Amino acid sequence: MTHSPTQSLLDTIAARLGAAHVLTEATDIAPHLAETRGLYRGTALAVVRPRDTEEVAFVVGTCAAARVPVVAHGGNTGLVGGGVPFGGVVISLARLDRVRAVDPLDATITVEAGCVLANVQQAAEAAGLLFPLSLASEGSCRIGGNLATNAGGTAVLAYGNARELTLGLEVVLADGQVWNGLRALRKDNSGYDLKNLFVGSEGTLGIITAAVLRLHPKPVSKATAFLGLPSARAALDAFGRLRDRLGPRLTAFEYVPRFPLEVVLRHLPGAVRPLAGDHHSYALVEISSPAPDAAEELEARLGDLIEAGLAEDAVLAQSEAQGSALWRLRESLSEMQGFEGGSIKHDVSVPVSRVAEFLERASAACEAALPGVRVCAFGHFGDGNIHFNLTQPVGAEKAAFLAEWPRFNRIVHDIVHAMDGSIAAEHGVGLIKRDELPRYKDPVALDLMRRLKGALDPLGILNPGKVLTPEDGGPEAFPAQGVAGRAVLGKVTAGPPGTAA
Amino acid sequence: MTHSPTQSLLDTIAARLGAAHVLTEATDIAPHLAETRGLYRGTALAVVRPRDTEEVAFVVGTCAAARVPVVAHGGNTGLVGGGVPFGGVVISLARLDRVRAVDPLDATITVEAGCVLANVQQAAEAAGLLFPLSLASEGSCRIGGNLATNAGGTAVLAYGNARELTLGLEVVLADGQVWNGLRALRKDNSGYDLKNLFVGSEGTLGIITAAVLRLHPKPVSKATAFLGLPSARAALDAFGRLRDRLGPRLTAFEYVPRFPLEVVLRHLPGAVRPLAGDHHSYALVEISSPAPDAAEELEARLGDLIEAGLAEDAVLAQSEAQGSALWRLRESLSEMQGFEGGSIKHDVSVPVSRVAEFLERASAACEAALPGVRVCAFGHFGDGNIHFNLTQPVGAEKAAFLAEWPRFNRIVHDIVHAMDGSIAAEHGVGLIKRDELPRYKDPVALDLMRRLKGALDPLGILNPGKVLTPEDGGPEAFPAQGVAGRAVLGKVTAGPPGTAA
Repeated sequence: MTHSPTQSLLDTIAARLGAAHVLTEATDIAPHLAETRGLYRGTALAVVRPRDTEEVAFVVGTCAAARVPVVAHGGNTGLVGGGVPFGGVVISLARLDRVRAVDPLDATITVEAGCVLANVQQAAEAAGLLFPLSLASEGSCRIGGNLATNAGGTAVLAYGNARELTLGLEVVLADGQVWNGLRALRKDNSGYDLKNLFVGSEGTLGIITAAVLRLHPKPVSKATAFLGLPSARAALDAFGRLRDRLGPRLTAFEYVPRFPLEVVLRHLPGAVRPLAGDHHSYALVEISSPAPDAAEELEARLGDLIEAGLAEDAVLAQSEAQGSALWRLRESLSEMQGFEGGSIKHDVSVPVSRVAEFLERASAACEAALPGVRVCAFGHFGDGNIHFNLTQPVGAEKAAFLAEWPRFNRIVHDIVHAMDGSIAAEHGVGLIKRDELPRYKDPVALDLMRRLKGALDPLGILNPGKVLTPEDGGPEAFPAQGVAGRAVLGKVTAGPPGTAA
Repeated sequence: MTHSPTQSLLDTIAARLGAAHVLTEATDIAPHLAETRGLYRGTALAVVRPRDTEEVAFVVGTCAAARVPVVAHGGNTGLVGGGVPFGGVVISLARLDRVRAVDPLDATITVEAGCVLANVQQAAEAAGLLFPLSLASEGSCRIGGNLATNAGGTAVLAYGNARELTLGLEVVLADGQVWNGLRALRKDNSGYDLKNLFVGSEGTLGIITAAVLRLHPKPVSKATAFLGLPSARAALDAFGRLRDRLGPRLTAFEYVPRFPLEVVLRHLPGAVRPLAGDHHSYALVEISSPAPDAAEELEARLGDLIEAGLAEDAVLAQSEAQGSALWRLRESLSEMQGFEGGSIKHDVSVPVSRVAEFLERASAACEAALPGVRVCAFGHFGDGNIHFNLTQPVGAEKAAFLAEWPRFNRIVHDIVHAMDGSIAAEHGVGLIKRDELPRYKDPVALDLMRRLKGALDPLGILNPGKVLTPEDGGPEAFPAQGVAGRAVLGKVTAGPPGTAA
C-alpha cells in the first residue's frame, strides 16, 4: 500500500467512519461524479458516507487540514452542476436520514440533511400537518440539498421557497466546527441572520447537516382548474385578480402556452386534452382552503374571469383523479419536451408584473435570432419564474442547435437583466451559470459575495469553483460540447498539490 | 476657526450636503444622543442629514477615510440603545422619505429608509393593498430602522417579521460603496442571500437606504374577540386549535394574564372591563378573511373553544369601535405598567409549544427570588414572544428594585436559554443585551458574526460597540444606574484619535 498523503487522508477517514463508508472504486463513485442531465462529469478521490453530524465535522476538519476540497451530496438531483466534484472528497449525506422530531403544537419538524424530501412530507402528514415544499424530484432529492439550493417548486406562491420554510440549521463549517442553530423560534433578533447565509449557498459556505422546518396546517379542501387564456397579458390580469381575492388560498398559478401543452398531449401516454378548443395559453390554478369550500370558491372565481374576458374557457376538476391528471400535464412538460429534439433551457425570473412583457420580448428575440425555433416557455407564473426553454426547429440537427446555447443565453439573459430579473431563479448558479454572474450581477454584490466566501471558507475547500469563479478559473463553466454530445466533459482538474491520487 | 481634522471632516460634508444639514449645536443634536427610555445618553461630533442615497454614501465614504464612526438614525425609537452614538457622526435618514413606487400588480412598494412606517402603510392602503408591519411606534419609527432591527409587532403571526416582508434592499456599505439590491423578485437564487444579512444587523454591517417591500391583499373582513382562559396551558391549546383551523386567517393571538389586565383597567382612562368575571388569563384574538365571513367564523371558533373547556368566556367585538377598544387595552399594557412603579423588562422568545411552561417556570423563579414581585408578562403568544416584565413589589423603593435588573436578567435569561429560546426576540441586541450574548450565544455563532463584521466593516466604523463587544470593551452595555435614576449615563467615549472636538 502507498503512503501518499491522499491514502493517509482516506485511511484517517476510514478509521473513523469504517472502511465500508469510504468508497474509492470507480463503479461505486461513478453516480457521484456525473450531473443529472449528463452535462458534466468530474472526478473525486473518494465518496465518504458519514452517519452523523460529528462524522461530517470530522471529515471536513480532516480534509481542511490536508487542504483537500469537499463537495456535499444529497440526492445529486441538482440541475446546475453544483454537485459535480473536480477532485477532492464527496461527502454523501444519505445516511443522515433521521427525522429527529415532529412537534405538532409548534408546527415544526427537525430533520437531518439526508432525509428524502418525500419522507419529510410524509412525516409532516403523519402528524396531521403539511410540509409544502414540492418539486419534481421529491422522491429522490434530499432536504439538505433543497436547503443548500433554496429550492422553489410548485408551492412557493403561498408558502415561499425553502428559505421561508427554514427556522433553524445545523451546519458544519469549513474548518470542521459545528454551528448549532437548530432553533424553532418565530422571532429571534439575537444577532446576525446566519441561517439565510447558508440557505442557498450551494455548499460553498458550509454543509447543512440538519434543519428545523416550518409546517403548515393541512388544507381542508383543495380544488384544481385548467383555464384557456387569450394572451399572456390576460394571464397576468387573471393572476392578479385571483391573488387579490384569494390571498394565501391561491396555492398555484402555473402557466402553459399552447406549444408546450401540445407537446405533452402528443407524447405523454394517456394524456387527455383538458379543454375542447384551442387557446393562446393555459393556466393550472389550485386553491387550498382551511374550509370545505375550495371547489365552490374556485368555480365562482372562474365565472368572474370568464365574465371579465380574462379566461375563454375553464374546467374544474371534479375529482382528485382529475386534478392529478391536470397536474400530470404540468409536471411532464420538461420531460416531454425532449421528444421534440434538443432543448436550450433558462431558469429565469422577473417581477410578477412583467412576466407577460418578458414572454413577449424574449420570444420575439429568440424567434428572430433563429427562424423556426420553438419557444417552449412555461412555469411558475405567480412567482415571476419562467422556465424559458427553446425547442429546436423541426428537422434541425440537434447538436448544431445545442451549440447555440451560449448565443441564446446572451439573448434571454440580456432581456432578463434589462427587466431587473434574475438569470438564476430557482435552480441556483452552480457551475452552469457561474461565469454568467460577473456579466449580470452588480459588481458590488459580487464583491460582497467574495468577501463572505473569504470570511467563512478562507482556504476555499468547500465546493470550490461553484457559484463564484475561483482565481485559477476552475473547471469550465459552460459545457457547450457536453450539452451537444452528452459527452464526458468539464475540465477535470486534479486534486490540490500533494493529494493527487 | 480651527482646522482640526474634525472640523475639516465636517466642512467636507457641509460642502456637499449644505451647511444647514450638518448640525453641531447641542440643542439640535440632543434628540439624537438619547435613547427613548432615557437609559443611555451618548455624544456625537455632528448630526448630518443627507437627502439621498448618494449623499449617504458620500458621508460614509468621507467618514471612513477619516476613520470616524457613523451611526444611522431613523426615528430613534429603538428600545435597546442601538442608536446611541458614542462619538462620531450620526446620519439621520429622515430626509430620504420618498415612496419611490407602488406596484399593485406586483404587490410591492419601493420606499426610502426615512419613510415613517405609518406612511408606508398608508401608501399601500391607497393602492388597495396591505403593508402588515404594525407596532406601537408606527407613527414615528422609520422603515429603515424597522428593517435594520427586523421589527416584529402584532402582525407577525400571519405575515412574518420585517425580514419576511423584504424583497430587495439598497445599502450603503462601510466604505461608501452602494449595493443596489432593489429587486422585486419572488425567486432569485443568483448568489448568496445578501439581503437577510443586512436586515436585523442594527446598522453594524451597512446602512439601508431603500427597500422593496411585499404587500398583501387587504382582508375583506376582520373580527376581534377577547377570551377568558383558565390557564396558560389552555391558552396554548386554544392557540393551536385556532391556528390549525384558521391557518393564515388567524392574524393575532395576544396573551394577557390577569395582573397586566387589571393594571390597564386601573390606569387607562376610559378602559372598560371586557368580560364580567375574573379569569387566570386572557387572549386577544383577531381573524382576517378574504371573504366577508370573519365574524361568523370567529364566533364559531369561540364556541368550539368554550365547549372544549379551553376558554371560560369570550366576547366578540360587535363593531370596529369595540374592536379598537380591545386592541387599546393590549397596546396600553407597556405604558400603564409604569403607574405601578419600576419595571424590569425582558423581550424573549421560546418555541411556541413551550410558552406556557416558560411562563410558569420564569414566574415561579422570579417570585421566589423577590417575594412580592409582580410578574407582568404579556405578548405575542402565537410567535412564542413574551414581554416578560416585572413590576416592583407594592411599597418597594423603585431605585432599589431597578438595581435588581441584572439579577433578574440572569434568572429569566437562564430559563430562556435552557428552553432553546432567544434573549432578544424582537427588539434586537443593541447595547443593552450586547454583553449578555457571549453568555448565551453559541460561541461558534458569535465567531461567525465577528467574521462577518470583519469582512463587511473591516475598519469597524459602522455603529461600533453595538451587537458585538468591541475589543476595547466599548461603552458600558448595562446601564444599571441609568435605569435606576434615569440619569445621563453610558460611558461617554471621545471620538477616535485625531477627531476629538
